[in-house]
Amino acid sequence: MTETVSADRLAHPFDRAIALHLMEDGVFAGRTSDDYWNFTGPFGGVTAATLLQSVMTHPRRAGTPVAITVNFCAPVARGDFRIGVREVRSNRSTQHWSMELSQSDTGIAATATAAFAQRRETWSHLATRMPQVPAPETLAPLPLQGMMAWLQRYEFRFANGHPHRLSATPSAEPGSAFSQVWVNDKPGRPLDFLSLMALCDTSFGRIFLVRGTMLPIGTVSMTTYFHVGADDLAANGDAPLLAVADAKIFNTGYSDQVVDLWARDGRLLATSHQIVYFRA
Amino acid sequence: MTETVSADRLAHPFDRAIALHLMEDGVFAGRTSDDYWNFTGPFGGVTAATLLQSVMTHPRRAGTPVAITVNFCAPVARGDFRIGVREVRSNRSTQHWSMELSQSDTGIAATATAAFAQRRETWSHLATRMPQVPAPETLAPLPLQGMMAWLQRYEFRFANGHPHRLSATPSAEPGSAFSQVWVNDKPGRPLDFLSLMALCDTSFGRIFLVRGTMLPIGTVSMTTYFHVGADDLAANGDAPLLAVADAKIFNTGYSDQVVDLWARDGRLLATSHQIVYFRA
Repeated sequence: MTETVSADRLAHPFDRAIALHLMEDGVFAGRTSDDYWNFTGPFGGVTAATLLQSVMTHPRRAGTPVAITVNFCAPVARGDFRIGVREVRSNRSTQHWSMELSQSDTGIAATATAAFAQRRETWSHLATRMPQVPAPETLAPLPLQGMMAWLQRYEFRFANGHPHRLSATPSAEPGSAFSQVWVNDKPGRPLDFLSLMALCDTSFGRIFLVRGTMLPIGTVSMTTYFHVGADDLAANGDAPLLAVADAKIFNTGYSDQVVDLWARDGRLLATSHQIVYFRA
Repeated sequence: MTETVSADRLAHPFDRAIALHLMEDGVFAGRTSDDYWNFTGPFGGVTAATLLQSVMTHPRRAGTPVAITVNFCAPVARGDFRIGVREVRSNRSTQHWSMELSQSDTGIAATATAAFAQRRETWSHLATRMPQVPAPETLAPLPLQGMMAWLQRYEFRFANGHPHRLSATPSAEPGSAFSQVWVNDKPGRPLDFLSLMALCDTSFGRIFLVRGTMLPIGTVSMTTYFHVGADDLAANGDAPLLAVADAKIFNTGYSDQVVDLWARDGRLLATSHQIVYFRA
Protein backbone atom coordinates (compact mmCIF):
# COMPACT_ATOMS: atom_id res chain seq x y z
CA MET A 1 0.00 0.00 0.00
CA THR A 2 2.82 2.34 0.88
CA GLU A 3 4.24 1.87 -2.62
CA THR A 4 0.94 2.85 -4.25
CA VAL A 5 0.72 6.08 -2.29
CA SER A 6 4.34 6.83 -2.97
CA ALA A 7 3.99 6.14 -6.72
CA ASP A 8 0.94 8.36 -6.82
CA ARG A 9 2.81 11.17 -5.11
CA LEU A 10 5.65 10.88 -7.57
CA ALA A 11 3.44 10.73 -10.67
CA HIS A 12 3.39 13.66 -13.06
CA PRO A 13 0.35 15.94 -12.61
CA PHE A 14 -0.67 15.04 -16.16
CA ASP A 15 -0.84 11.34 -15.30
CA ARG A 16 -2.89 12.11 -12.21
CA ALA A 17 -5.22 14.31 -14.28
CA ILE A 18 -5.96 11.60 -16.86
CA ALA A 19 -6.07 8.66 -14.41
CA LEU A 20 -9.06 6.33 -14.88
CA HIS A 21 -10.41 3.47 -12.80
CA LEU A 22 -12.23 0.57 -14.42
CA MET A 23 -15.75 0.33 -12.95
CA GLU A 24 -17.27 -2.34 -15.16
CA ASP A 25 -16.73 -3.57 -18.72
CA GLY A 26 -16.51 -0.44 -20.87
CA VAL A 27 -17.03 2.09 -18.07
CA PHE A 28 -14.25 4.09 -16.44
CA ALA A 29 -14.40 6.59 -13.58
CA GLY A 30 -12.24 9.71 -13.40
CA ARG A 31 -12.06 13.03 -11.62
CA THR A 32 -11.19 16.49 -12.90
CA SER A 33 -7.82 17.92 -11.84
CA ASP A 34 -7.38 21.43 -10.50
CA ASP A 35 -3.82 21.26 -11.86
CA TYR A 36 -5.20 21.72 -15.39
CA TRP A 37 -8.13 24.04 -14.69
CA ASN A 38 -9.17 26.50 -17.40
CA PHE A 39 -11.79 29.29 -17.26
CA THR A 40 -14.97 27.25 -16.88
CA GLY A 41 -13.76 23.65 -16.77
CA PRO A 42 -10.70 21.46 -17.27
CA PHE A 43 -8.30 22.31 -20.12
CA GLY A 44 -9.82 20.66 -23.24
CA GLY A 45 -6.53 18.96 -24.10
CA VAL A 46 -6.66 17.00 -20.86
CA THR A 47 -10.29 16.04 -21.46
CA ALA A 48 -9.29 14.82 -24.92
CA ALA A 49 -6.32 12.90 -23.49
CA THR A 50 -8.55 11.29 -20.85
CA LEU A 51 -10.95 10.14 -23.57
CA LEU A 52 -8.01 8.72 -25.52
CA GLN A 53 -6.74 7.12 -22.31
CA SER A 54 -10.00 5.17 -21.97
CA VAL A 55 -9.20 3.34 -25.20
CA MET A 56 -5.45 3.05 -24.57
CA THR A 57 -6.12 1.19 -21.32
CA HIS A 58 -8.99 -0.90 -22.70
CA PRO A 59 -8.12 -4.62 -22.64
CA ARG A 60 -9.30 -5.14 -26.23
CA ARG A 61 -7.37 -2.18 -27.68
CA ALA A 62 -5.08 -3.20 -30.56
CA GLY A 63 -2.54 -0.92 -32.23
CA THR A 64 -1.99 2.81 -31.75
CA PRO A 65 -4.23 5.82 -32.46
CA VAL A 66 -4.44 7.15 -36.01
CA ALA A 67 -7.37 9.55 -35.63
CA ILE A 68 -9.44 10.94 -32.79
CA THR A 69 -12.30 13.44 -32.81
CA VAL A 70 -13.49 14.98 -29.56
CA ASN A 71 -16.74 16.96 -29.39
CA PHE A 72 -17.06 19.34 -26.47
CA CYS A 73 -20.80 19.36 -25.79
CA ALA A 74 -20.81 21.24 -22.47
CA PRO A 75 -18.34 22.35 -19.81
CA VAL A 76 -17.08 19.51 -17.60
CA ALA A 77 -17.96 20.37 -14.00
CA ARG A 78 -15.35 20.07 -11.25
CA GLY A 79 -15.49 16.57 -9.75
CA ASP A 80 -16.25 13.01 -10.80
CA PHE A 81 -17.07 11.84 -14.30
CA ARG A 82 -17.57 8.58 -16.13
CA ILE A 83 -16.36 7.55 -19.56
CA GLY A 84 -18.27 4.92 -21.47
CA VAL A 85 -16.15 3.20 -24.15
CA ARG A 86 -17.52 1.07 -26.96
CA GLU A 87 -15.57 -1.07 -29.41
CA VAL A 88 -17.51 -0.26 -32.58
CA ARG A 89 -15.67 -2.51 -34.99
CA SER A 90 -12.38 -4.39 -35.12
CA ASN A 91 -10.96 -5.30 -38.50
CA ARG A 92 -7.74 -7.11 -39.36
CA SER A 93 -5.51 -4.08 -38.81
CA THR A 94 -7.87 -1.27 -37.72
CA GLN A 95 -10.21 -0.68 -34.81
CA HIS A 96 -12.97 1.89 -34.36
CA TRP A 97 -14.01 3.15 -30.93
CA SER A 98 -16.70 5.43 -29.56
CA MET A 99 -16.43 7.22 -26.22
CA GLU A 100 -18.66 9.40 -24.08
CA LEU A 101 -17.87 11.45 -20.99
CA SER A 102 -20.80 12.11 -18.65
CA GLN A 103 -21.48 13.48 -15.19
CA SER A 104 -24.39 12.42 -13.04
CA ASP A 105 -25.85 15.88 -12.59
CA THR A 106 -25.21 17.47 -15.98
CA GLY A 107 -25.43 14.67 -18.56
CA ILE A 108 -23.09 14.15 -21.50
CA ALA A 109 -20.24 16.68 -21.58
CA ALA A 110 -18.12 15.22 -24.41
CA THR A 111 -18.25 12.56 -27.09
CA ALA A 112 -15.39 11.12 -29.12
CA THR A 113 -14.57 8.63 -31.83
CA ALA A 114 -11.15 7.12 -32.49
CA ALA A 115 -9.52 4.90 -35.10
CA PHE A 116 -6.61 2.71 -34.06
CA ALA A 117 -4.33 0.76 -36.38
CA GLN A 118 -1.47 -1.68 -36.46
CA ARG A 119 1.08 0.52 -38.20
CA ARG A 120 3.56 -1.10 -40.56
CA GLU A 121 6.58 0.28 -42.32
CA THR A 122 5.76 1.43 -45.85
CA TRP A 123 6.93 3.84 -48.48
CA SER A 124 7.16 7.10 -46.58
CA HIS A 125 7.23 10.73 -47.66
CA LEU A 126 7.12 14.10 -45.97
CA ALA A 127 5.52 16.49 -48.48
CA THR A 128 6.35 19.56 -46.43
CA ARG A 129 9.26 20.70 -44.29
CA MET A 130 9.64 21.64 -40.68
CA PRO A 131 9.74 25.45 -40.51
CA GLN A 132 13.08 26.94 -39.55
CA VAL A 133 12.74 28.79 -36.27
CA PRO A 134 15.18 29.76 -33.50
CA ALA A 135 16.13 26.88 -31.18
CA PRO A 136 14.03 26.69 -27.97
CA GLU A 137 17.10 27.41 -25.82
CA THR A 138 17.42 30.81 -27.45
CA LEU A 139 13.83 31.84 -26.62
CA ALA A 140 12.55 32.95 -23.23
CA PRO A 141 9.61 30.99 -21.83
CA LEU A 142 6.35 32.92 -21.53
CA PRO A 143 5.97 34.17 -17.93
CA LEU A 144 2.83 32.50 -16.57
CA GLN A 145 2.95 33.04 -12.82
CA GLY A 146 -0.52 33.71 -11.51
CA MET A 147 -2.19 32.66 -14.77
CA MET A 148 -4.76 29.88 -15.13
CA ALA A 149 -3.58 26.55 -13.76
CA TRP A 150 -3.36 24.65 -17.09
CA LEU A 151 -1.05 27.29 -18.56
CA GLN A 152 1.40 26.69 -15.73
CA ARG A 153 1.58 22.98 -16.69
CA TYR A 154 3.27 23.93 -19.96
CA GLU A 155 6.26 25.95 -21.10
CA PHE A 156 5.73 28.15 -24.16
CA ARG A 157 8.62 29.67 -26.13
CA PHE A 158 7.27 31.80 -28.95
CA ALA A 159 9.16 32.08 -32.22
CA ASN A 160 6.19 33.83 -33.88
CA GLY A 161 2.80 35.14 -32.78
CA HIS A 162 3.90 36.16 -29.30
CA PRO A 163 0.90 37.16 -27.13
CA HIS A 164 2.70 40.31 -25.92
CA ARG A 165 0.88 41.93 -28.83
CA LEU A 166 -2.44 41.47 -27.01
CA SER A 167 -4.08 44.48 -25.40
CA ALA A 168 -7.32 45.26 -23.56
CA THR A 169 -9.18 46.39 -26.68
CA PRO A 170 -9.43 44.93 -30.19
CA SER A 171 -6.94 46.23 -32.74
CA ALA A 172 -8.18 48.31 -35.64
CA GLU A 173 -6.81 45.97 -38.30
CA PRO A 174 -6.88 42.14 -38.14
CA GLY A 175 -3.52 40.67 -37.12
CA SER A 176 -1.98 37.43 -38.37
CA ALA A 177 -3.49 34.17 -37.07
CA PHE A 178 -0.14 32.40 -37.43
CA SER A 179 2.09 31.30 -34.56
CA GLN A 180 5.13 29.08 -34.03
CA VAL A 181 5.75 27.97 -30.45
CA TRP A 182 8.05 25.49 -28.76
CA VAL A 183 5.93 23.79 -26.13
CA ASN A 184 6.58 21.11 -23.51
CA ASP A 185 5.05 19.67 -20.36
CA LYS A 186 6.16 21.33 -17.14
CA PRO A 187 7.65 19.56 -15.34
CA GLY A 188 9.08 17.54 -18.22
CA ARG A 189 7.39 14.25 -19.13
CA PRO A 190 8.42 11.71 -21.80
CA LEU A 191 6.17 12.15 -24.84
CA ASP A 192 3.44 9.59 -25.56
CA PHE A 193 0.12 9.64 -27.40
CA LEU A 194 -1.66 10.98 -24.33
CA SER A 195 0.54 14.00 -23.75
CA LEU A 196 0.73 14.62 -27.51
CA MET A 197 -3.07 14.65 -27.61
CA ALA A 198 -3.13 17.39 -24.95
CA LEU A 199 -0.27 19.32 -26.58
CA CYS A 200 -2.40 19.52 -29.75
CA ASP A 201 -4.81 21.75 -27.81
CA THR A 202 -2.27 24.12 -26.24
CA SER A 203 -2.25 26.69 -29.05
CA PHE A 204 -4.04 29.84 -27.95
CA GLY A 205 -7.27 30.91 -29.65
CA ARG A 206 -6.48 32.30 -33.10
CA ILE A 207 -9.07 35.02 -32.55
CA PHE A 208 -6.86 36.45 -29.77
CA LEU A 209 -4.05 37.06 -32.26
CA VAL A 210 -6.29 38.29 -35.04
CA ARG A 211 -8.37 40.64 -32.88
CA GLY A 212 -5.39 41.56 -30.71
CA THR A 213 -7.31 40.92 -27.49
CA MET A 214 -8.76 38.13 -25.36
CA LEU A 215 -12.35 37.17 -26.15
CA PRO A 216 -14.66 34.39 -24.95
CA ILE A 217 -14.00 31.23 -26.98
CA GLY A 218 -14.73 27.54 -26.75
CA THR A 219 -13.66 24.56 -28.84
CA VAL A 220 -16.70 22.80 -30.31
CA SER A 221 -14.89 19.89 -31.97
CA MET A 222 -11.26 18.85 -32.36
CA THR A 223 -9.79 16.20 -34.68
CA THR A 224 -6.22 14.95 -34.44
CA TYR A 225 -4.33 12.66 -36.80
CA PHE A 226 -1.26 10.92 -35.40
CA HIS A 227 1.42 10.29 -38.01
CA VAL A 228 3.97 8.13 -36.16
CA GLY A 229 4.09 5.10 -33.90
CA ALA A 230 4.82 4.80 -30.18
CA ASP A 231 8.59 4.34 -30.68
CA ASP A 232 8.87 7.64 -32.55
CA LEU A 233 7.14 9.42 -29.69
CA ALA A 234 9.29 7.74 -27.04
CA ALA A 235 12.40 8.81 -28.97
CA ASN A 236 11.40 12.43 -28.36
CA GLY A 237 11.76 12.09 -24.61
CA ASP A 238 10.70 15.31 -22.90
CA ALA A 239 12.12 17.63 -25.59
CA PRO A 240 9.87 20.53 -26.64
CA LEU A 241 7.71 20.22 -29.76
CA LEU A 242 7.19 22.95 -32.31
CA ALA A 243 3.49 23.82 -32.59
CA VAL A 244 2.69 25.67 -35.80
CA ALA A 245 -0.85 27.04 -35.66
CA ASP A 246 -2.98 29.02 -38.08
CA ALA A 247 -6.58 29.75 -39.06
CA LYS A 248 -8.28 30.54 -42.34
CA ILE A 249 -11.66 31.96 -41.50
CA PHE A 250 -13.68 33.66 -38.77
CA ASN A 251 -17.37 33.82 -39.65
CA THR A 252 -20.81 33.69 -37.98
CA GLY A 253 -19.21 33.04 -34.57
CA TYR A 254 -16.97 30.14 -35.60
CA SER A 255 -13.33 29.82 -36.64
CA ASP A 256 -11.12 26.98 -37.77
CA GLN A 257 -7.71 26.27 -36.24
CA VAL A 258 -5.01 24.05 -37.72
CA VAL A 259 -1.96 22.93 -35.72
CA ASP A 260 1.06 20.89 -36.82
CA LEU A 261 3.20 19.33 -34.09
CA TRP A 262 6.85 18.79 -35.02
CA ALA A 263 9.62 16.98 -33.19
CA ARG A 264 12.87 18.85 -33.12
CA ASP A 265 14.51 16.38 -35.51
CA GLY A 266 12.05 17.30 -38.28
CA ARG A 267 9.47 14.53 -37.86
CA LEU A 268 5.82 15.59 -38.19
CA LEU A 269 4.14 13.86 -35.24
CA ALA A 270 0.54 15.04 -35.49
CA THR A 271 -1.77 17.38 -37.38
CA SER A 272 -4.76 18.71 -35.48
CA HIS A 273 -7.82 20.72 -36.45
CA GLN A 274 -10.51 22.36 -34.43
CA ILE A 275 -13.59 24.48 -34.87
CA VAL A 276 -13.86 27.17 -32.24
CA TYR A 277 -16.80 29.25 -31.12
CA PHE A 278 -15.96 32.90 -30.49
CA ARG A 279 -17.87 35.93 -29.27
CA ALA A 280 -16.57 39.05 -31.00
CA MET B 1 -49.33 8.77 -55.69
CA THR B 2 -48.62 9.68 -59.28
CA GLU B 3 -46.99 12.88 -58.14
CA THR B 4 -44.65 11.00 -55.78
CA VAL B 5 -43.48 8.67 -58.52
CA SER B 6 -43.09 11.53 -60.95
CA ALA B 7 -41.12 13.64 -58.42
CA ASP B 8 -38.89 10.66 -57.70
CA ARG B 9 -38.20 10.17 -61.40
CA LEU B 10 -37.30 13.81 -61.80
CA ALA B 11 -35.07 13.98 -58.72
CA HIS B 12 -31.34 14.39 -59.10
CA PRO B 13 -29.41 11.09 -58.74
CA PHE B 14 -27.71 12.60 -55.66
CA ASP B 15 -31.06 13.14 -53.94
CA ARG B 16 -32.11 9.59 -54.77
CA ALA B 17 -28.75 8.29 -53.41
CA ILE B 18 -29.11 10.02 -50.04
CA ALA B 19 -32.87 9.46 -49.62
CA LEU B 20 -33.88 8.17 -46.18
CA HIS B 21 -37.16 6.84 -44.83
CA LEU B 22 -38.10 7.26 -41.19
CA MET B 23 -38.66 3.81 -39.64
CA GLU B 24 -39.08 4.73 -35.99
CA ASP B 25 -37.88 7.54 -33.74
CA GLY B 26 -34.17 7.98 -34.49
CA VAL B 27 -33.92 5.20 -37.09
CA PHE B 28 -33.84 5.79 -40.84
CA ALA B 29 -33.68 3.28 -43.68
CA GLY B 30 -31.73 3.86 -46.89
CA ARG B 31 -30.35 1.97 -49.85
CA THR B 32 -27.02 2.30 -51.66
CA SER B 33 -27.11 3.83 -55.15
CA ASP B 34 -25.34 2.31 -58.13
CA ASP B 35 -25.17 5.85 -59.54
CA TYR B 36 -22.39 6.65 -57.04
CA TRP B 37 -20.61 3.29 -56.90
CA ASN B 38 -16.87 3.29 -56.18
CA PHE B 39 -14.43 0.35 -56.18
CA THR B 40 -15.73 -1.67 -53.24
CA GLY B 41 -18.74 0.30 -52.02
CA PRO B 42 -20.56 3.59 -52.44
CA PHE B 43 -18.52 6.78 -52.88
CA GLY B 44 -17.59 7.88 -49.34
CA GLY B 45 -18.84 11.41 -49.97
CA VAL B 46 -22.36 10.09 -50.52
CA THR B 47 -22.16 7.95 -47.38
CA ALA B 48 -21.09 11.05 -45.45
CA ALA B 49 -23.90 13.12 -47.00
CA THR B 50 -26.43 10.41 -46.11
CA LEU B 51 -25.26 10.48 -42.49
CA LEU B 52 -25.58 14.27 -42.48
CA GLN B 53 -29.01 13.91 -44.09
CA SER B 54 -30.19 11.83 -41.14
CA VAL B 55 -29.70 14.84 -38.87
CA MET B 56 -30.89 17.44 -41.40
CA THR B 57 -34.25 15.64 -41.68
CA HIS B 58 -34.53 14.89 -37.95
CA PRO B 59 -37.57 16.66 -36.44
CA ARG B 60 -35.53 17.95 -33.46
CA ARG B 61 -32.65 19.36 -35.56
CA ALA B 62 -31.97 23.05 -34.87
CA GLY B 63 -29.56 25.22 -36.86
CA THR B 64 -27.13 24.21 -39.56
CA PRO B 65 -24.03 21.97 -39.50
CA VAL B 66 -20.77 23.42 -38.19
CA ALA B 67 -18.71 20.21 -37.94
CA ILE B 68 -19.11 16.60 -38.96
CA THR B 69 -16.75 13.65 -38.57
CA VAL B 70 -17.41 10.42 -40.43
CA ASN B 71 -15.50 7.23 -39.60
CA PHE B 72 -15.48 4.60 -42.32
CA CYS B 73 -15.30 1.35 -40.34
CA ALA B 74 -15.95 -1.11 -43.18
CA PRO B 75 -17.14 -1.07 -46.80
CA VAL B 76 -20.89 -0.49 -47.15
CA ALA B 77 -22.34 -3.46 -49.03
CA ARG B 78 -24.70 -2.92 -51.96
CA GLY B 79 -28.28 -2.81 -50.70
CA ASP B 80 -30.22 -1.71 -47.65
CA PHE B 81 -28.80 0.02 -44.59
CA ARG B 82 -30.07 1.68 -41.46
CA ILE B 83 -28.91 4.86 -39.79
CA GLY B 84 -29.43 5.32 -36.08
CA VAL B 85 -29.40 8.98 -35.01
CA ARG B 86 -29.04 10.17 -31.44
CA GLU B 87 -29.46 13.71 -30.13
CA VAL B 88 -26.56 13.77 -27.66
CA ARG B 89 -27.06 17.23 -26.26
CA SER B 90 -28.93 20.41 -27.18
CA ASN B 91 -27.70 23.70 -25.75
CA ARG B 92 -29.04 27.18 -26.28
CA SER B 93 -27.39 27.65 -29.67
CA THR B 94 -25.58 24.37 -30.37
CA GLN B 95 -26.58 20.73 -30.82
CA HIS B 96 -24.49 17.58 -30.78
CA TRP B 97 -25.51 14.46 -32.69
CA SER B 98 -24.23 10.94 -33.02
CA MET B 99 -24.98 8.68 -36.00
CA GLU B 100 -24.32 5.08 -36.96
CA LEU B 101 -24.80 3.31 -40.29
CA SER B 102 -25.30 -0.45 -40.08
CA GLN B 103 -26.31 -3.36 -42.28
CA SER B 104 -28.02 -6.46 -41.00
CA ASP B 105 -25.44 -8.91 -42.30
CA THR B 106 -22.20 -7.00 -41.77
CA GLY B 107 -22.70 -4.82 -38.69
CA ILE B 108 -21.61 -1.22 -38.27
CA ALA B 109 -20.08 0.23 -41.45
CA ALA B 110 -19.75 3.89 -40.42
CA THR B 111 -20.09 6.14 -37.41
CA ALA B 112 -20.36 9.91 -37.30
CA THR B 113 -20.70 12.84 -34.94
CA ALA B 114 -21.96 16.29 -35.87
CA ALA B 115 -22.28 19.71 -34.25
CA PHE B 116 -25.03 22.04 -35.39
CA ALA B 117 -25.42 25.68 -34.46
CA GLN B 118 -27.68 28.67 -34.84
CA ARG B 119 -25.31 30.93 -36.74
CA ARG B 120 -25.43 34.65 -36.14
CA GLU B 121 -23.75 37.55 -37.86
CA THR B 122 -20.51 38.55 -36.09
CA TRP B 123 -17.22 40.18 -36.77
CA SER B 124 -15.96 38.26 -39.78
CA HIS B 125 -12.51 37.82 -41.28
CA LEU B 126 -10.98 35.71 -44.03
CA ALA B 127 -7.33 35.18 -43.03
CA THR B 128 -6.39 33.70 -46.39
CA ARG B 129 -7.32 34.37 -49.99
CA MET B 130 -8.91 32.34 -52.70
CA PRO B 131 -6.13 31.13 -55.02
CA GLN B 132 -6.10 32.68 -58.47
CA VAL B 133 -6.69 29.99 -61.06
CA PRO B 134 -8.06 29.99 -64.62
CA ALA B 135 -11.86 30.28 -64.84
CA PRO B 136 -13.68 26.94 -65.13
CA GLU B 137 -14.97 27.82 -68.62
CA THR B 138 -11.38 27.94 -69.88
CA LEU B 139 -10.56 24.42 -68.65
CA ALA B 140 -11.66 21.19 -70.31
CA PRO B 141 -13.57 18.74 -68.09
CA LEU B 142 -11.77 15.49 -67.30
CA PRO B 143 -13.02 12.79 -69.72
CA LEU B 144 -14.64 10.13 -67.53
CA GLN B 145 -16.63 7.92 -69.91
CA GLY B 146 -16.38 4.29 -68.84
CA MET B 147 -14.89 5.20 -65.44
CA MET B 148 -16.40 4.34 -62.06
CA ALA B 149 -19.98 5.49 -61.65
CA TRP B 150 -19.40 8.11 -58.95
CA LEU B 151 -16.80 9.91 -61.08
CA GLN B 152 -19.41 10.36 -63.78
CA ARG B 153 -21.67 12.18 -61.31
CA TYR B 154 -19.14 15.04 -61.13
CA GLU B 155 -17.36 17.33 -63.55
CA PHE B 156 -13.68 18.00 -62.81
CA ARG B 157 -11.74 20.86 -64.40
CA PHE B 158 -8.13 20.75 -63.27
CA ALA B 159 -6.15 23.96 -62.86
CA ASN B 160 -3.31 22.07 -61.09
CA GLY B 161 -2.48 18.45 -60.30
CA HIS B 162 -4.08 17.00 -63.43
CA PRO B 163 -4.18 13.19 -63.29
CA HIS B 164 -2.83 12.90 -66.84
CA ARG B 165 0.52 12.65 -65.06
CA LEU B 166 -0.46 9.21 -63.70
CA SER B 167 1.09 6.13 -65.25
CA ALA B 168 1.03 2.37 -64.64
CA THR B 169 4.12 2.36 -62.43
CA PRO B 170 5.24 4.62 -59.58
CA SER B 171 7.45 7.55 -60.50
CA ALA B 172 11.07 7.60 -59.32
CA GLU B 173 10.71 10.87 -57.43
CA PRO B 174 7.70 11.92 -55.33
CA GLY B 175 5.43 14.37 -57.15
CA SER B 176 3.49 17.25 -55.61
CA ALA B 177 0.42 16.38 -53.51
CA PHE B 178 -1.24 19.69 -54.41
CA SER B 179 -4.20 20.11 -56.74
CA GLN B 180 -6.70 22.81 -57.65
CA VAL B 181 -9.88 21.61 -59.35
CA TRP B 182 -13.18 23.17 -60.27
CA VAL B 183 -15.81 20.59 -59.43
CA ASN B 184 -19.59 20.44 -59.71
CA ASP B 185 -22.42 17.94 -59.64
CA LYS B 186 -23.35 16.46 -63.01
CA PRO B 187 -26.07 17.11 -63.89
CA GLY B 188 -26.00 20.46 -62.09
CA ARG B 189 -27.71 20.71 -58.70
CA PRO B 190 -28.14 23.79 -56.46
CA LEU B 191 -25.57 23.65 -53.67
CA ASP B 192 -26.65 22.77 -50.13
CA PHE B 193 -24.94 21.26 -47.08
CA LEU B 194 -25.57 17.74 -48.36
CA SER B 195 -23.96 18.16 -51.77
CA LEU B 196 -21.16 20.25 -50.23
CA MET B 197 -20.48 17.38 -47.80
CA ALA B 198 -20.05 15.00 -50.73
CA LEU B 199 -17.99 17.50 -52.76
CA CYS B 200 -15.51 17.60 -49.84
CA ASP B 201 -14.66 13.97 -50.63
CA THR B 202 -14.24 14.29 -54.41
CA SER B 203 -10.52 15.10 -54.37
CA PHE B 204 -8.52 12.13 -55.63
CA GLY B 205 -6.13 10.28 -53.31
CA ARG B 206 -3.05 12.43 -52.72
CA ILE B 207 -0.90 9.30 -52.92
CA PHE B 208 -1.89 8.96 -56.60
CA LEU B 209 -0.31 12.33 -57.39
CA VAL B 210 2.73 11.81 -55.19
CA ARG B 211 3.51 8.27 -56.39
CA GLY B 212 2.37 9.04 -59.94
CA THR B 213 0.17 5.95 -60.09
CA MET B 214 -3.08 4.47 -58.75
CA LEU B 215 -2.76 2.50 -55.53
CA PRO B 216 -5.28 0.91 -53.15
CA ILE B 217 -6.54 3.55 -50.70
CA GLY B 218 -9.39 4.00 -48.27
CA THR B 219 -10.52 6.92 -46.12
CA VAL B 220 -10.47 5.98 -42.43
CA SER B 221 -11.94 9.20 -41.03
CA MET B 222 -13.05 12.52 -42.51
CA THR B 223 -13.85 15.77 -40.69
CA THR B 224 -15.50 18.75 -42.34
CA TYR B 225 -16.07 22.24 -40.96
CA PHE B 226 -18.74 24.34 -42.65
CA HIS B 227 -18.00 28.05 -42.57
CA VAL B 228 -21.20 29.62 -43.95
CA GLY B 229 -24.95 29.37 -43.54
CA ALA B 230 -27.61 27.92 -45.81
CA ASP B 231 -28.24 31.21 -47.65
CA ASP B 232 -24.59 31.48 -48.70
CA LEU B 233 -24.75 27.98 -50.14
CA ALA B 234 -28.02 28.64 -51.94
CA ALA B 235 -26.48 31.78 -53.47
CA ASN B 236 -23.93 29.57 -55.21
CA GLY B 237 -26.60 27.81 -57.28
CA ASP B 238 -25.05 25.04 -59.35
CA ALA B 239 -21.82 26.93 -60.11
CA PRO B 240 -18.58 24.91 -59.77
CA LEU B 241 -16.55 25.12 -56.56
CA LEU B 242 -12.78 25.32 -56.41
CA ALA B 243 -11.37 22.37 -54.44
CA VAL B 244 -7.81 23.02 -53.26
CA ALA B 245 -6.31 19.79 -51.91
CA ASP B 246 -2.95 18.93 -50.39
CA ALA B 247 -1.22 16.50 -48.03
CA LYS B 248 1.70 16.81 -45.64
CA ILE B 249 2.78 13.31 -44.77
CA PHE B 250 2.66 9.70 -45.93
CA ASN B 251 3.90 7.32 -43.24
CA THR B 252 3.27 3.77 -41.93
CA GLY B 253 0.39 3.29 -44.37
CA TYR B 254 -1.52 6.49 -43.59
CA SER B 255 -1.66 9.94 -45.13
CA ASP B 256 -3.46 13.16 -44.29
CA GLN B 257 -5.48 15.14 -46.84
CA VAL B 258 -6.67 18.72 -46.50
CA VAL B 259 -9.26 20.26 -48.83
CA ASP B 260 -10.59 23.81 -48.99
CA LEU B 261 -13.82 24.39 -50.91
CA TRP B 262 -14.21 27.87 -52.40
CA ALA B 263 -17.17 29.52 -54.09
CA ARG B 264 -16.30 31.40 -57.22
CA ASP B 265 -16.94 34.76 -55.56
CA GLY B 266 -14.12 34.16 -53.05
CA ARG B 267 -16.09 32.80 -50.07
CA LEU B 268 -14.52 29.87 -48.24
CA LEU B 269 -17.43 27.45 -47.78
CA ALA B 270 -15.81 24.47 -46.07
CA THR B 271 -12.48 23.06 -44.94
CA SER B 272 -12.21 19.29 -44.84
CA HIS B 273 -9.58 16.88 -43.52
CA GLN B 274 -9.18 13.16 -43.85
CA ILE B 275 -6.80 10.41 -42.88
CA VAL B 276 -6.37 7.89 -45.65
CA TYR B 277 -5.03 4.36 -45.59
CA PHE B 278 -2.75 3.52 -48.53
CA ARG B 279 -0.93 0.42 -49.70
CA ALA B 280 2.36 1.42 -51.35
